[in-house]
Amino acid sequence: MLIVLKPDVTQEEIDHIVAKIRSLNLEPYVSKGMYRTIITIIGDEDILREQPFEAIAGVESVKPILRPFKLVSRETHPDRTEVEVGNVKIGGDKIVVIAGPCAVEGEKEVIEHALMVKKAGAHIFRAGAYKPRTSPYSFQGFGEQGLKFLAKAREETGLPVVTEVIDPRDVALVEKYADMLQIGTRNMQNFNLLREVGKCQKPVLLKRGMSATVNEFLMAAEYILSQGNRNIVLCARGIRTFEDVTRNTLDAGVIPIIKDWSHLPVIGDPSHAMGLNAYVIPAALSYIAAGADGIIVEAHPSPEDAISDGQQTIDSDQLVILIQKLGRIARALDRDIY
Amino acid sequence: MLIVLKPDVTQEEIDHIVAKIRSLNLEPYVSKGMYRTIITIIGDEDILREQPFEAIAGVESVKPILRPFKLVSRETHPDRTEVEVGNVKIGGDKIVVIAGPCAVEGEKEVIEHALMVKKAGAHIFRAGAYKPRTSPYSFQGFGEQGLKFLAKAREETGLPVVTEVIDPRDVALVEKYADMLQIGTRNMQNFNLLREVGKCQKPVLLKRGMSATVNEFLMAAEYILSQGNRNIVLCARGIRTFEDVTRNTLDAGVIPIIKDWSHLPVIGDPSHAMGLNAYVIPAALSYIAAGADGIIVEAHPSPEDAISDGQQTIDSDQLVILIQKLGRIARALDRDIY
Amino acid sequence: MLIVLKPDVTQEEIDHIVAKIRSLNLEPYVSKGMYRTIITIIGDEDILREQPFEAIAGVESVKPILRPFKLVSRETHPDRTEVEVGNVKIGGDKIVVIAGPCAVEGEKEVIEHALMVKKAGAHIFRAGAYKPRTSPYSFQGFGEQGLKFLAKAREETGLPVVTEVIDPRDVALVEKYADMLQIGTRNMQNFNLLREVGKCQKPVLLKRGMSATVNEFLMAAEYILSQGNRNIVLCARGIRTFEDVTRNTLDAGVIPIIKDWSHLPVIGDPSHAMGLNAYVIPAALSYIAAGADGIIVEAHPSPEDAISDGQQTIDSDQLVILIQKLGRIARALDRDIY
Amino acid sequence: MLIVLKPDVTQEEIDHIVAKIRSLNLEPYVSKGMYRTIITIIGDEDILREQPFEAIAGVESVKPILRPFKLVSRETHPDRTEVEVGNVKIGGDKIVVIAGPCAVEGEKEVIEHALMVKKAGAHIFRAGAYKPRTSPYSFQGFGEQGLKFLAKAREETGLPVVTEVIDPRDVALVEKYADMLQIGTRNMQNFNLLREVGKCQKPVLLKRGMSATVNEFLMAAEYILSQGNRNIVLCARGIRTFEDVTRNTLDAGVIPIIKDWSHLPVIGDPSHAMGLNAYVIPAALSYIAAGADGIIVEAHPSPEDAISDGQQTIDSDQLVILIQKLGRIARALDRDIY
Repeated sequence: MLIVLKPDVTQEEIDHIVAKIRSLNLEPYVSKGMYRTIITIIGDEDILREQPFEAIAGVESVKPILRPFKLVSRETHPDRTEVEVGNVKIGGDKIVVIAGPCAVEGEKEVIEHALMVKKAGAHIFRAGAYKPRTSPYSFQGFGEQGLKFLAKAREETGLPVVTEVIDPRDVALVEKYADMLQIGTRNMQNFNLLREVGKCQKPVLLKRGMSATVNEFLMAAEYILSQGNRNIVLCARGIRTFEDVTRNTLDAGVIPIIKDWSHLPVIGDPSHAMGLNAYVIPAALSYIAAGADGIIVEAHPSPEDAISDGQQTIDSDQLVILIQKLGRIARALDRDIY
Repeated sequence: MLIVLKPDVTQEEIDHIVAKIRSLNLEPYVSKGMYRTIITIIGDEDILREQPFEAIAGVESVKPILRPFKLVSRETHPDRTEVEVGNVKIGGDKIVVIAGPCAVEGEKEVIEHALMVKKAGAHIFRAGAYKPRTSPYSFQGFGEQGLKFLAKAREETGLPVVTEVIDPRDVALVEKYADMLQIGTRNMQNFNLLREVGKCQKPVLLKRGMSATVNEFLMAAEYILSQGNRNIVLCARGIRTFEDVTRNTLDAGVIPIIKDWSHLPVIGDPSHAMGLNAYVIPAALSYIAAGADGIIVEAHPSPEDAISDGQQTIDSDQLVILIQKLGRIARALDRDIY
Repeated sequence: MLIVLKPDVTQEEIDHIVAKIRSLNLEPYVSKGMYRTIITIIGDEDILREQPFEAIAGVESVKPILRPFKLVSRETHPDRTEVEVGNVKIGGDKIVVIAGPCAVEGEKEVIEHALMVKKAGAHIFRAGAYKPRTSPYSFQGFGEQGLKFLAKAREETGLPVVTEVIDPRDVALVEKYADMLQIGTRNMQNFNLLREVGKCQKPVLLKRGMSATVNEFLMAAEYILSQGNRNIVLCARGIRTFEDVTRNTLDAGVIPIIKDWSHLPVIGDPSHAMGLNAYVIPAALSYIAAGADGIIVEAHPSPEDAISDGQQTIDSDQLVILIQKLGRIARALDRDIY
Repeated sequence: MLIVLKPDVTQEEIDHIVAKIRSLNLEPYVSKGMYRTIITIIGDEDILREQPFEAIAGVESVKPILRPFKLVSRETHPDRTEVEVGNVKIGGDKIVVIAGPCAVEGEKEVIEHALMVKKAGAHIFRAGAYKPRTSPYSFQGFGEQGLKFLAKAREETGLPVVTEVIDPRDVALVEKYADMLQIGTRNMQNFNLLREVGKCQKPVLLKRGMSATVNEFLMAAEYILSQGNRNIVLCARGIRTFEDVTRNTLDAGVIPIIKDWSHLPVIGDPSHAMGLNAYVIPAALSYIAAGADGIIVEAHPSPEDAISDGQQTIDSDQLVILIQKLGRIARALDRDIY
């Protein structure tokens, strides 16, 4: 950590700061320059991060040196992590397609949707039993019944299923039925929920918060890992910006950065990024070209009849084309598709 | 709702859309113009909002007409709501100051802090027993013990206390000890938590999510109201933008807009907005000048020793000056301070 | 255009608005619904856009229906435009690579750089003679001398050259020496400069402003087209958001949207988007996968010795790899590279 | 400046970086810690800022210590600057109101508007002769004729006039007629225009770019000062964010920060910040409460008939109320109004 002092800092103030740092069993190095005095502290930034140095008289600014995450970092775990979801591995040479409707729409429907997804060639089935909706008056999902329908869809198709959990009280239940638990964008910093899924045996799909920095995204994964669950797949889905021609703004350029910093696999969600199904395919291709390990996409036999998110949902034909094109891009990069 | 059709829309596509709207028991009006055909539907937008019209062939864009909230709206409740917290009313002519440290730091400490706050002239005491922290390695709060300390601080000072709840499982417990429950910025769209506090008898302080639009902020309040709890105070605390000289970006201009659209009181949080204690006072004054009903501010006898958020915490002397200046601004606007 | 009226609008106010619209020779349609009265006006939105309807008593909000651009739109020009820069066509089946250093660094240097770029297989050479720099104390470019060096580099290599113009007074001079004029991100709404390049015979590379919406970006191109110059290549280079692990945030998902709305070619700039050379290659691949017609990239034989932007500049080896990979991605999408 | 090295940096890489720094006649201090080696360089950051250290092997990140601006800084000029515009001083104890329509609308009109503004009690008249418009089909202003009308309005009322200049070729002309030259938000980084007004004798009103950081805003002022013109008034007018209930997002909290860092006066523009006249008054009050030295506001006898920006323009009655309320807020803060 680096502490930049004000131009008019007094010796008494410097002594006070130095004493404070020593009281934490750390050693400060004071350098006086032409324009500023700075104090460098090399050591455990976790201890320092907690200290409000900026509240101390004479301090102008504080600059951390280390990134705040540890267990998710490639510094502590240089090899890439591969996450097994049923019989599918995410994070290896082969890219993975997770597809399905936004919501579980009924027993018959969910089986039909899973069959469609399987036939198109996708590898994991997705559908929401618990739906976090902006309006209290919107459909909120089938709950436990929806989880049971999902388990039936798996039986019928053999596809592993991933579904969202939004309440720490539901984690055990969702784990019982699903093959992978999804943490949605609005819950990326629901820390108690992160802790609960961190205690699960099942893998976790962690979506980036719509206003989270990459560092905060990785710290959310750190919460899960710190509880013992190492099977985490990170999911880029766009952030909120001033641009509204797309639903969110997904810069695929963060994918190689995250893969450089962390050993965890990264996938992308073109449906929530774009918000309109007409542009889902090119967006998905761009994520794979940037190095993503797969995609998660909303698909439905008849998007205009979907219970939610229909406008960003592709149909069966588009899903077939998407998977075929993803394979071509993957092979152009010396990878392949499952 | 207004549906703008593509320039090359076919009559068959128009007929399909019209039929779809009629199947919802609503009446569409089709207007053909020089450049575009549009379909206007005046009626219950809640039903329409659920429909993915943008997924239907021939549709270019969809424009809602009504705002999505109802119970929080002044259209359904023209009179201003005043929220009682202990013996203090928020939302009337008199502005209110809520002050205290970021976290409960111990039994002795919390009583000392509450006495300081009372002596300075603040009206409600704040301190966190449950702390949502970006890092799993940071101090996470005293939990239930912290709530008991808060209750003692109230006994000692007579000040009502507000404290944050971050888990639906803790709502009953927090309600037992606190006079007001705070929903933090990261939980503004934790919908199950909103529902739980919506069933409480105690008032709720709802902070704006750091990436929430004003509409989403009011929809979060709508979740709480829809469960029966009408005692909600909205709190502006800044949004996340590219500017980082302040911790967040708080445009006080949204305060008169929110008060125009909703009957609920609005306060501002200069500590989290600014992130640096040196600028807390002018920021707080600006919120009152824009029409806020009060402020919530982090205060501590020795900010540099605070367990968390010390850099944005003012000390006792600054709190005294702040309250005196707030009073002057309030009176310049024909209001007063409690 | 749609005008939504306030719930308490009076008949007198409605009559006034209707009269105002009729005075513009347009015909309003008034629809009274359960919750709101709305006025629909189908016709020339250019006239309406100028009218401050929101300033009129009784008006709640105004919603435009049409997009504001015309000449750049595929509605008025359905075929794709191909822009010729020297002997290179941008916008056809073959993708194009524009490469070179940020700045012209001297006569000998610019020739060396152009030779490097040519040898690596790029198709157009870039280097700045006029540099818009954030600090008045930074190197501001070689000016006219730099343009002459560029012309020599073209003679030596046969590569067409593109260079930035930042002042309307320099347009004629730049046009004399360069094959394509670049408008930088900071000048995207320098309307007089747009008009001047709009009168040129040479093609224009228009970069998106860092805070411009897609609509504003296309309106900037409209300025150029409205002066008669149809040879415009649009360049995505990222927008400014809260995320700072990359220099800018470039969502490649806007590329297929822009190509859907406009007939103009679109390229991407991975150097300014990422800000770090280590991530330039995957970013560039993602733009092509999303449908871009080419890229513009900063390249230099020794990035650490570059006069400016060295940290985001790739070296000769990276440029060779980039071009080879771009070709593979292009062919995977049934396109090719020049 | 601080250079953080990668965990796997080699001694050879360190030696290379050290040699590079010494070649700039600066002295590096290398500190090896538990997790990272860092290199501290205290000295002229202007030289360092130009160096692409991040392009050098072994470097993880680079952190500047000093702020980039000099002449605008209170470190080099501790006393506050007061800027004289005609007979009005901006930046002293008394706050200033600049008011008038968005555009010059004709000779008779501009005189009528200036008389209205004077009668309401404002101190400086504003109106645009050159209008930077998003659409090439919108009204672009009266140009030189408009400047002449403005000069007549000054003769009639005695009010100094401020008007925007958008082209370096027009600076001499605008200086001839106006008392203050305005640089608009879209030209904040039009560096050649900044240089031209920097050579003027007349004061400059510099608006913050809608995507400019505070540091970039002050660097734009540095451009003007570096040419010799010290009479600069900074104007906050909001930045672009995801929130669209206001036209821009103006955090008044940056005002005390800018006044802490710089000696230049700061005013606020509630019209462009809010975008709707109904909220202009509370917004304006908030800027003064935060410490602004004045405001610039759009006012017109009949906003609905204004040629441009009518929806955000207040009328004569609102201007009178605004000025009266501004005076009360100013006096509550021990300042006054002119």
